[in-house]
Amino acid sequence: ELFVLTYGALVAQLCKDYEKDEDVNNCLDRMGYGIGIRLIEDFLARSAVKKCRSYSETADMIAQVAFKMYLGVTPRVRCSSAAGNEFSLILDKNPLVDFVEELPAERASLCYCNLLCGVIRGALEMVHLAAEVTFLQDKLKGDAVTEIGIVFLKNTED
Amino acid sequence: ELFVLTYGALVAQLCKDYEKDEDVNNCLDRMGYGIGIRLIEDFLARSAVKKCRSYSETADMIAQVAFKMYLGVTPRVRCSSAAGNEFSLILDKNPLVDFVEELPAERASLCYCNLLCGVIRGALEMVHLAAEVTFLQDKLKGDAVTEIGIVFLKNTED
Repeated sequence: ELFVLTYGALVAQLCKDYEKDEDVNNCLDRMGYGIGIRLIEDFLARSAVKKCRSYSETADMIAQVAFKMYLGVTPRVRCSSAAGNEFSLILDKNPLVDFVEELPAERASLCYCNLLCGVIRGALEMVHLAAEVTFLQDKLKGDAVTEIGIVFLKNTED
Repeated sequence: ELFVLTYGALVAQLCKDYEKDEDVNNCLDRMGYGIGIRLIEDFLARSAVKKCRSYSETADMIAQVAFKMYLGVTPRVRCSSAAGNEFSLILDKNPLVDFVEELPAERASLCYCNLLCGVIRGALEMVHLAAEVTFLQDKLKGDAVTEIGIVFLKNTED
């Protein structure tokens, strides 16, 4: 909870700093990226997982090992493209918003948890996987669940 | 570690926003205060502790239950006044600075972990204990240990 509240303080500070929701979202994503490229080392060391052989395995790893380890929850994973490179992480409960009731009206475009997208993107890049990571649904905005979309672009190791 | 890195991003953002270390320190303390007054409820619910009957018991509770619960470490407690209202929490290892090598030269007065002081102050205030909480020593500044000083001012319940 200390983390959740500290994260809230960070978002509040960025909202003071930037008028536009888009700028806050970008800043959270950038910060998350910087965190992801450092966190991956900790993740690989602590999880002792083997190399993933497919995008599908990678998505499962993020959901079942990484989310569990750092946020204490396990999102469901859904493959959302025939090509097999698009996945959704679906969270019925998002611990990061435990203390957030709802977004203020003037912050309707804020992606409160956008840091997470940056973290995933940064961490994936460090294992040579380029990806686009965005919020597709958000309970804070009235959606039924919170859904993070991951589109793997190509294996940058090739 | 996600928390530790996110905290680092928060401090970095504040350093961008405020030129003077003193302003960053104040801001962290204020944010911490806001967190502490909310965190106390979670702490009381999860720890199910009984009411402390002395300042000494309170200091032990912060070190042995609260620090352990939220930061995973247990500081040593030292009473530092004959009057029995001043205590030090002494940390040989501070998990919040795991990824911080050293403060940049131009940020020599930064109290990197000042949020913690605010958290303790805010939480204590909610149980009717006014206190001053400050860093007395900081490993990041070359001290041998990290030491947080708590001075209980009076029991505001009286």
